[in-house]
Amino acid sequence: MYPNFNFEIINSDPNSNARCGKLTTPHGIVETPNFIFCATKAAIKGLSPTAMKAENTQIILANTYHLMLQPTSEIVKQLGGLHEMMGWDGPMFTDSGGYQIFSLGHGSISSEIKGKRNSTRPNTLLKITEEGAKFRSYIDGSLHLLTPEKAIQIQRNLGADLIVVLDECTPFHVDKTYTANSMHMSHRWALRSVEEFKRENNYAQALYGIIQGGVYEDLRKESADFVNSNEFFAHAIGGCLGSDKNQMHNIVGTTMSMLSQNRPVHLLGIGGVSDIFNGIIHGIDTFDCVHPTRLARHGGALVPHSLKLIEADPSKTEHFNLLNNRFRSDEKAIDPECGCSTCKHFSRGYLHHLFKAKEILGLQALTAHNVHFMNRLMQSIRNAIKDGTLEQERKKWVS
Amino acid sequence: MYPNFNFEIINSDPNSNARCGKLTTPHGIVETPNFIFCATKAAIKGLSPTAMKAENTQIILANTYHLMLQPTSEIVKQLGGLHEMMGWDGPMFTDSGGYQIFSLGHGSISSEIKGKRNSTRPNTLLKITEEGAKFRSYIDGSLHLLTPEKAIQIQRNLGADLIVVLDECTPFHVDKTYTANSMHMSHRWALRSVEEFKRENNYAQALYGIIQGGVYEDLRKESADFVNSNEFFAHAIGGCLGSDKNQMHNIVGTTMSMLSQNRPVHLLGIGGVSDIFNGIIHGIDTFDCVHPTRLARHGGALVPHSLKLIEADPSKTEHFNLLNNRFRSDEKAIDPECGCSTCKHFSRGYLHHLFKAKEILGLQALTAHNVHFMNRLMQSIRNAIKDGTLEQERKKWVS
Repeated sequence: MYPNFNFEIINSDPNSNARCGKLTTPHGIVETPNFIFCATKAAIKGLSPTAMKAENTQIILANTYHLMLQPTSEIVKQLGGLHEMMGWDGPMFTDSGGYQIFSLGHGSISSEIKGKRNSTRPNTLLKITEEGAKFRSYIDGSLHLLTPEKAIQIQRNLGADLIVVLDECTPFHVDKTYTANSMHMSHRWALRSVEEFKRENNYAQALYGIIQGGVYEDLRKESADFVNSNEFFAHAIGGCLGSDKNQMHNIVGTTMSMLSQNRPVHLLGIGGVSDIFNGIIHGIDTFDCVHPTRLARHGGALVPHSLKLIEADPSKTEHFNLLNNRFRSDEKAIDPECGCSTCKHFSRGYLHHLFKAKEILGLQALTAHNVHFMNRLMQSIRNAIKDGTLEQERKKWVS
Repeated sequence: MYPNFNFEIINSDPNSNARCGKLTTPHGIVETPNFIFCATKAAIKGLSPTAMKAENTQIILANTYHLMLQPTSEIVKQLGGLHEMMGWDGPMFTDSGGYQIFSLGHGSISSEIKGKRNSTRPNTLLKITEEGAKFRSYIDGSLHLLTPEKAIQIQRNLGADLIVVLDECTPFHVDKTYTANSMHMSHRWALRSVEEFKRENNYAQALYGIIQGGVYEDLRKESADFVNSNEFFAHAIGGCLGSDKNQMHNIVGTTMSMLSQNRPVHLLGIGGVSDIFNGIIHGIDTFDCVHPTRLARHGGALVPHSLKLIEADPSKTEHFNLLNNRFRSDEKAIDPECGCSTCKHFSRGYLHHLFKAKEILGLQALTAHNVHFMNRLMQSIRNAIKDGTLEQERKKWVS
C-alpha cells in the first residue's frame, strides 16, 4: 500500500524504549527521533524554507483546517501543491483538520491535550454526527462540513507526504462512556478514511491512524489494537493525555507498549524539551508543536539547562527571556555552542534591543535560533541513543 | 581630513548631468548612483544583513534619533558600534537626528520634504535655540537636548562611515525670512559640527554638510557656497523641495548646478522610481527612503513599467498590489526577469495567500524583492549612464 515509504529502526537504546530510525518519504528521509515544525498556514512564521533548511530542518507540517478555508485546497493544488507552492522540497506532514475544528475557540490546542482547561465545545463547531463535523469558518463565518472522506481529499490536494485520518478530538472533562463512544466513531471514521485513501492512492502519500481512548487504559488498548490491525503506515497518539506531566508520561508509556513496534509513532502537539525526553524513552519517533516558534516571537530563546546553570539564570523555564534587562549590553551570543545564523551574527544585547524596539528582525532571529536548537537537540538525542548515553544527555538539556 | 575616504567620478552621461562614481569608505566601496536602505532602529524590517547582501545591497543607514533614545549610543558603542552590533560589514550612513526631531509627530518625513502637509511643529519638540533642539522622547517622554556637538558625538559612538551635521529641518509653510534665519542657524550649527568632528577625528568617518534654503534660489545659492567652502567630504540636499514633483525637479536641478562637482551628493528621503531618475539626471549620487521596504510590508511589489504594460495592470503606481484578488491563483513569479530569492521560490498566488493570511513571511519575501528591485534598478541606471542610454532605460522603468 505504501511502496514509496519506509520505516527502518537503526538503533535501540539498551536502557529504555528509545530508538533511532529512518523514515523514508518521496521527498527524502527523516531521521528519527525528530521534531516537526508548524507551518500552520503553509508558512513558518518568520523563516523561509531556505532558512529552515539552513538551520538543519528535516520536516515541517501544515494544517488542513486553516488551508481548507484559506486559500482553499483547490488553490493550493493549482499552485502545485504544498511543496511547490511553499518552495519546500523536504518531507512534509498535514493533520486532518479535526484537531482545530474541535478545539479552536478554546485557546491553545496543547491546553486541550493536556487537559488544562474546563473544556466545552467551541461555538464555531455546530454539530458532530456520524457523517462528520459541521462548523463555521473562523475567517468569514461560512458553513463547512468536514467528513473523513473530505479530510483525505483535501489532504490529497495539499499533497503532503504524511497525512492523517479525521478523528474526534474528545474534550477533557467528559466521562468514560462519552470517550468510548467518541473513540468508536473515530474508528469508523478511520475505516472510511482508509477506503477513501485507497480509492485514489497515488503512492505519493502515507496514512497515519490515530489512537484514542483518553485516560482509560482499556480504551487505549482497544484503540491500539484497532490501528495495529489496519493498513496504516504510521500511528499518532491523539486524544487527552491527562491533566499533568506524570499522567501524560504514563498514558504515553502505556499506549506505546500496546502499539506495533515496526511503525513510526507521532506524538501530537508536544514540544517542551523535558516532555520530548519523556516521549523518546517510550519510543516516540516524531513530535510537533508550535512552542519553539511561538516562544521565539515572544523573546524566548531555547537554551540547554547546562547553559542556564553557567549563567545562573534563576527562571525555571527552558529558555532565556531576552526582554530581560540583564541582557541589555550583553555582547555574548545566546549560546556560544550553538551554530545557528543568529548566534553567529547577533549578540544578546542586540536581540534585546530588537525586541524592545519591536523590530521584526528580532523574532526572525529568535525563530532561526529556536529551530536550530530543536534540530540540534534531536540530533544530540539520536547520537545519545546510538551511544547508549541518553540519561547523561538528558541532564545536559533539562533540569 | 578624510584619508580613508574617496569619491571618484568614472563616467558622465553625455546627455545630462548624470554620473557614475566610486565612493570609497573604510567598509568598502559604494558604486554610485546608489540607493541607501533604511535600517531605522539598526535593523531592516524583515531582512537580515546576510539577506540584504544576498540581494546585492551595498549600503544601509540607521537613524540617530531612534538609536540615541533606544538602546542609546553608549549601548551601541558597548556592543561594538553599528557594524559589529548589526552584523553588517558594508558601508553605512547615519543621519544627524534633526530630521526626526523636527518632523516626527507630523506623519511621514517625505510628506514634510515634499510640502504635502500644513506643517506645525510636533509637540514633542519643545524649543529650538542657538544651542540646539530640546525635545521629549517618543518612547518615555524624557527630556533631551540635541546640540550640533552631541549629534557628532552620538554618531561617533554609533560608528557609521558616513555621518551628517545637525540642521534645522525648516517646515514648509514658513516665509522666506524664517527660512533664511533658519538656514543661517543651520550654517552656524554646521561649523560647530565640523569643529567637534575635527576635535576627535578617528579617520573612520566622513562628514556630510547639508544645503538648506527651501524653495528660494538665492538662499540655495548662499547655502551651496557655504558647504562648498567648508571641509565636508560630501553634501546632502535638505530642507523643503517644494509642493510638487516639478518644483522638486527644479529645486534639485538648480541646487546641483551650484554645488562643487567633485563631492558626492545625497538627496535626503527620496525613493520613488521616477523621482530617482529625475535626481540622477541632475547628478545626484545617492538616495535614501523607507518607501521600498515600507511598501513591501503593505503588499506592494515594485516592478518595472514594462512589466505593468505586459500585464495590463490598470493602476498608476510603480508596483503590483499583491493583495489584489487577481493574483489569487497566479503561478508566475512577481517578475520573471527578477533574480531575487522571492522570485526564485514563490509565486504571486502564494504571496497573495501569505498577505491574506497575515503571515510574516509575506512581508519578508516582498522586502527581499523590493530591495533586490532597487539594487537592480540602480545597477541598470549605472550601466545606462556608461552606455549613454539613460533615456531608453528610463522608459523601461517608469511611465
